[in-house]
Amino acid sequence: MQDNLIGIGVIGYGYWGPNLVRNFANSKVSRVVSVSDLDPAKLETVSRQYPGVEVTTEFRDLLMNPEVEAVAIATPVHSHYNLALAALRAGKHVFVEKPLAQTSEQVRHLVEEAERRNLTLMVDHTFLYTPAVQKIRKLISDGALGDIYYYNGVRASLGLFQCDVNVIWDLAVHDISIIQYIFDEAPVAVSATGSCHVAGTPENMAHITLFFASSCVAHVSVNWLSPVKVRQTFVGGSQKMIVYDDLEPTEKIKVYDKGITVDGPSEVAHQLRIGYRAGDMWAPHLAATEALQTEVEHFVDCIRTSATPISSGATGLRVVEVLEAASRSIAAQGIPVRLGLPQRITELAS
Amino acid sequence: MQDNLIGIGVIGYGYWGPNLVRNFANSKVSRVVSVSDLDPAKLETVSRQYPGVEVTTEFRDLLMNPEVEAVAIATPVHSHYNLALAALRAGKHVFVEKPLAQTSEQVRHLVEEAERRNLTLMVDHTFLYTPAVQKIRKLISDGALGDIYYYNGVRASLGLFQCDVNVIWDLAVHDISIIQYIFDEAPVAVSATGSCHVAGTPENMAHITLFFASSCVAHVSVNWLSPVKVRQTFVGGSQKMIVYDDLEPTEKIKVYDKGITVDGPSEVAHQLRIGYRAGDMWAPHLAATEALQTEVEHFVDCIRTSATPISSGATGLRVVEVLEAASRSIAAQGIPVRLGLPQRITELAS
Amino acid sequence: MQDNLIGIGVIGYGYWGPNLVRNFANSKVSRVVSVSDLDPAKLETVSRQYPGVEVTTEFRDLLMNPEVEAVAIATPVHSHYNLALAALRAGKHVFVEKPLAQTSEQVRHLVEEAERRNLTLMVDHTFLYTPAVQKIRKLISDGALGDIYYYNGVRASLGLFQCDVNVIWDLAVHDISIIQYIFDEAPVAVSATGSCHVAGTPENMAHITLFFASSCVAHVSVNWLSPVKVRQTFVGGSQKMIVYDDLEPTEKIKVYDKGITVDGPSEVAHQLRIGYRAGDMWAPHLAATEALQTEVEHFVDCIRTSATPISSGATGLRVVEVLEAASRSIAAQGIPVRLGLPQRITELAS
Amino acid sequence: MQDNLIGIGVIGYGYWGPNLVRNFANSKVSRVVSVSDLDPAKLETVSRQYPGVEVTTEFRDLLMNPEVEAVAIATPVHSHYNLALAALRAGKHVFVEKPLAQTSEQVRHLVEEAERRNLTLMVDHTFLYTPAVQKIRKLISDGALGDIYYYNGVRASLGLFQCDVNVIWDLAVHDISIIQYIFDEAPVAVSATGSCHVAGTPENMAHITLFFASSCVAHVSVNWLSPVKVRQTFVGGSQKMIVYDDLEPTEKIKVYDKGITVDGPSEVAHQLRIGYRAGDMWAPHLAATEALQTEVEHFVDCIRTSATPISSGATGLRVVEVLEAASRSIAAQGIPVRLGLPQRITELAS
Repeated sequence: MQDNLIGIGVIGYGYWGPNLVRNFANSKVSRVVSVSDLDPAKLETVSRQYPGVEVTTEFRDLLMNPEVEAVAIATPVHSHYNLALAALRAGKHVFVEKPLAQTSEQVRHLVEEAERRNLTLMVDHTFLYTPAVQKIRKLISDGALGDIYYYNGVRASLGLFQCDVNVIWDLAVHDISIIQYIFDEAPVAVSATGSCHVAGTPENMAHITLFFASSCVAHVSVNWLSPVKVRQTFVGGSQKMIVYDDLEPTEKIKVYDKGITVDGPSEVAHQLRIGYRAGDMWAPHLAATEALQTEVEHFVDCIRTSATPISSGATGLRVVEVLEAASRSIAAQGIPVRLGLPQRITELAS
Repeated sequence: MQDNLIGIGVIGYGYWGPNLVRNFANSKVSRVVSVSDLDPAKLETVSRQYPGVEVTTEFRDLLMNPEVEAVAIATPVHSHYNLALAALRAGKHVFVEKPLAQTSEQVRHLVEEAERRNLTLMVDHTFLYTPAVQKIRKLISDGALGDIYYYNGVRASLGLFQCDVNVIWDLAVHDISIIQYIFDEAPVAVSATGSCHVAGTPENMAHITLFFASSCVAHVSVNWLSPVKVRQTFVGGSQKMIVYDDLEPTEKIKVYDKGITVDGPSEVAHQLRIGYRAGDMWAPHLAATEALQTEVEHFVDCIRTSATPISSGATGLRVVEVLEAASRSIAAQGIPVRLGLPQRITELAS
Repeated sequence: MQDNLIGIGVIGYGYWGPNLVRNFANSKVSRVVSVSDLDPAKLETVSRQYPGVEVTTEFRDLLMNPEVEAVAIATPVHSHYNLALAALRAGKHVFVEKPLAQTSEQVRHLVEEAERRNLTLMVDHTFLYTPAVQKIRKLISDGALGDIYYYNGVRASLGLFQCDVNVIWDLAVHDISIIQYIFDEAPVAVSATGSCHVAGTPENMAHITLFFASSCVAHVSVNWLSPVKVRQTFVGGSQKMIVYDDLEPTEKIKVYDKGITVDGPSEVAHQLRIGYRAGDMWAPHLAATEALQTEVEHFVDCIRTSATPISSGATGLRVVEVLEAASRSIAAQGIPVRLGLPQRITELAS
Repeated sequence: MQDNLIGIGVIGYGYWGPNLVRNFANSKVSRVVSVSDLDPAKLETVSRQYPGVEVTTEFRDLLMNPEVEAVAIATPVHSHYNLALAALRAGKHVFVEKPLAQTSEQVRHLVEEAERRNLTLMVDHTFLYTPAVQKIRKLISDGALGDIYYYNGVRASLGLFQCDVNVIWDLAVHDISIIQYIFDEAPVAVSATGSCHVAGTPENMAHITLFFASSCVAHVSVNWLSPVKVRQTFVGGSQKMIVYDDLEPTEKIKVYDKGITVDGPSEVAHQLRIGYRAGDMWAPHLAATEALQTEVEHFVDCIRTSATPISSGATGLRVVEVLEAASRSIAAQGIPVRLGLPQRITELAS
């Protein structure tokens, strides 16, 4: 029976690694074969909790282990590219913590390498697998919101300052991936500003505007230096509007039957008659499933069926392209940077 | 005794005018002499509630009335300049609803006209007179927050779409005036984005970043198309941080003794050791006084003593200059616009 | 036209009187003829705001005024009986602030006097006229909640200590009247406890349990000595449950599609299999109408049509009977006190 | 080194048992030797997670194991007495999930048995070990609140209906133990009401008033049938008041500098002049330690030093006496039941 389970190797047992190990271990479709980390103390923890799992300070041991069919990478961002590339070249399917890599060029290489070898490459955009984001996506695709006007996200905490990426690569990456997932339109340009309050560290605060060809607009505010934790997103449409607060224990999504009505030009020149609609609010029940559990099982499923993951390499590429463009705009104090046609849309076009 | 009261004429009895009339009438230092509005039905309401007050559809009647020593203007923004100028030329002190006028050039004329005639010109930036903003200003000037890192404001509602100004002239104007009041540093550039979701109307949603010469940064998000009302501001400093929620009935300001500690470079190259401090939270008691009452009495006091109002014409000019620059940046999708040295700082420099 | 308006006299211009005057004055079916208060300073305020209204320190002047067809009483509770009786005897319809009088015997006299003279007697149980309570009543009577399990109300503030009534006559009176209005079953007994923390003052804190013949139960906690204001009510049913928070600006009522399922006895002896249902939450839109406006117009309507008011004298009698019984239980530290069959049900039975 | 660790046996691996095992295992002063449960599937889970721990379906195996020095019991309430007694007789120190046993007589036997054998008997009143309750106790004992006026607790959820105890033995037990811990005065009588909405199950909703000799009063509302989870406690004093919300992620305790002032009799007969004080609110920072970790280490410490635990058998006895009295009052619809002098106070008196 054990033979039917996909064998997983996990590289990195710091902040996120333990969650990956726990979920791959709990899953009925996978088993954890080996874990590597540079810190022997962390490996001891693994051995105590998961006596059957091999541990090693040398990630190459995982890659050489034939029982390891897929590798999950949860190391600092700057090491993603080399580790993922080595894993693909060793013939392993690869699951990488977000963001996929430090540059879009790196990501492109990884995507090509995976395609060439017919291996599954998936990036861990966990939020896409939450019942809340799944519900928002469904409400939008069912047309419940009408025309989409905006996405407004705020993500703030007294956060974990990171040294190799700034706050947008750490926090805005979630919103960029959500926006890409729930909207069927891709942004065409980005303007962003950011600031750094501790000399020698990356930006700890940033504000990003994504422009779309339609009148839709997205704005994301991220902050590592907030006294209180905030995870709040507004999605506005012509028919309904959503407030999504990820910190709410149960009612994470509230759908408001509110909006405006436009009655055409009034008699007063240059003035439209705008009316307001105020209706019921509705908080759909959401399942209490852990997103990461759903996600790791989706990864195994994609390996087995060769299906394209929801958070595929191509998806992760687009996210990194947006982050790169936003970084360039931040460096230029908000000057807008155009975004090329996203790969998936290019593909559709060709 | 009545003779000691400053006689006030109010032009405009729409949304805000009734509040002005009520506060000038309730004040022990002023009395309302006359009210003008183009709509006779509104004047009837005035007569019913304030039988002793003259009413007229012709604002020039107020200007010619010698009992009217000061004029308060609460009309649509596009009429502010002409009305205020006429009032100053008629020798009246002038109080104008925010923003002072549609362009900085207009405001400059008004400021000059008032100075030439030794008349008090004041703009109604009501928030500056709230106990909450007064308290924040005091905490900052007392050094309680340490170095100021940022101001982050969100102001959203299912709002009153206006036809002659966009959302930043309606909502962000509050934040711009607050930032100017509580910080002793002026912004040097602005990057802003905005969008419009109803063809033929001004922008109903905008995001503004104000850059300062120091590492301080301010960001303001405003939205007329939000399903719920939000009035929330974060002010972060190196020692303490404030969350100011104007919709809280009593605890509007929460001061967090939270922050980061920088321990100098760690052994790991390119990495600072950042620590986190988490201490008590404290909500100072705020008086329950109505800001507009404080403000109208400050106006009368400035008339009597020739003192410069907190929200003087020069103050209102700076706010309009920032709004103009932000509007230019919005039109260019976020391209930063430099702000000249603010007048008050120029004055100090000379 | 003025002749078609019911002429109102208001006795008492303290805390609540100004609200009565404002609403009777704003109504299109009534006009305020005269206001009496023992304090001439308060009458001056009336004259300034309502120049056409007569004022007097002598309430008998109102009763003798033929233009006064109905009298509204907003004086301390101990004076309600004498004033209402005098007004009825003078042939006036009567509207009395809650509670109707200090004893059920007094209320019974008033009800009889009003019936004998075919006059409308109404008690000001304002909450019955709020859109929130109207909605809860409708949800219950439509069967949306299923079998009613409980009513749990908390009403607390740093309150206005009163000298002639204790906290249940001031605050619990609201819940008692709401329970009577929304449930079609009357309580059969009451157990209550209360306490007093300031020597020489009435109880400032109390907890009341109302027993019903069915398994329904109601509990009301009231407190004049709470650091924060609370106005929260839970209504639980077999199908749905309501949380009603009167301090919420817009979403005052939340309806939860939650509950338990009983699957019959399990194999384990003495144990039922209880399951849990968790569904959507829904906040119905409520009109923003002022309850007191609705109520005064209902009063005028009842005068004109001789209809029985929603908060009739008989209704107010039942409320006072429950308050009396609760007071007796408080004096005996919770010993339950039986409640006689309520008058309206007696009437139905005969 | 392992020899210095106290060896623990855990009986029961249902809802709470896994938490006990985890905390005894993580502690640096104890190790888990053996776990028993009637369900082999649960024991398999133990073996997978804690490979070194013995498992057995027969609790007597634990009692006979000389490595087991102390036994922790986390089984249904009706089995507490027999299991605890057997463990004490086997010479083991005993830690029992709350409530200690089903009757005060049983608890008295256990306390006597433990005393006779010089064994530590401790009941798991986890809340006493939370930083929040520790802080409240300290604020009260430091006199920060002034005279204590009241404790008002609400504990509600769509809860786990239990078959062998009613809601007060499941939920109110927490408040009773907290009240006993933070107040230096013991209640003298109790009045309680309760109700059952599912035929054949114990009461699922109850309201308890505890009377004290002073003017202090405590009230506890518990409910297994609430649509939302509530864990809220108010503690009022003459100088300050506390709101303790256990569901708040960080600011669990808010201390309000609010209250009343009594100015002595006013000129109006029978009326005191009551004034109101409104000052700052303050939320003290609380450590993020897990209460159960603190508690299991306290248990081990008491075993080693023969100190009396904070939640000793005598403490647990008093809690059960109050629960018994409350149950008797519930059966009599609120008739007050006197409480004997608590054991600890008797001891002090002798």
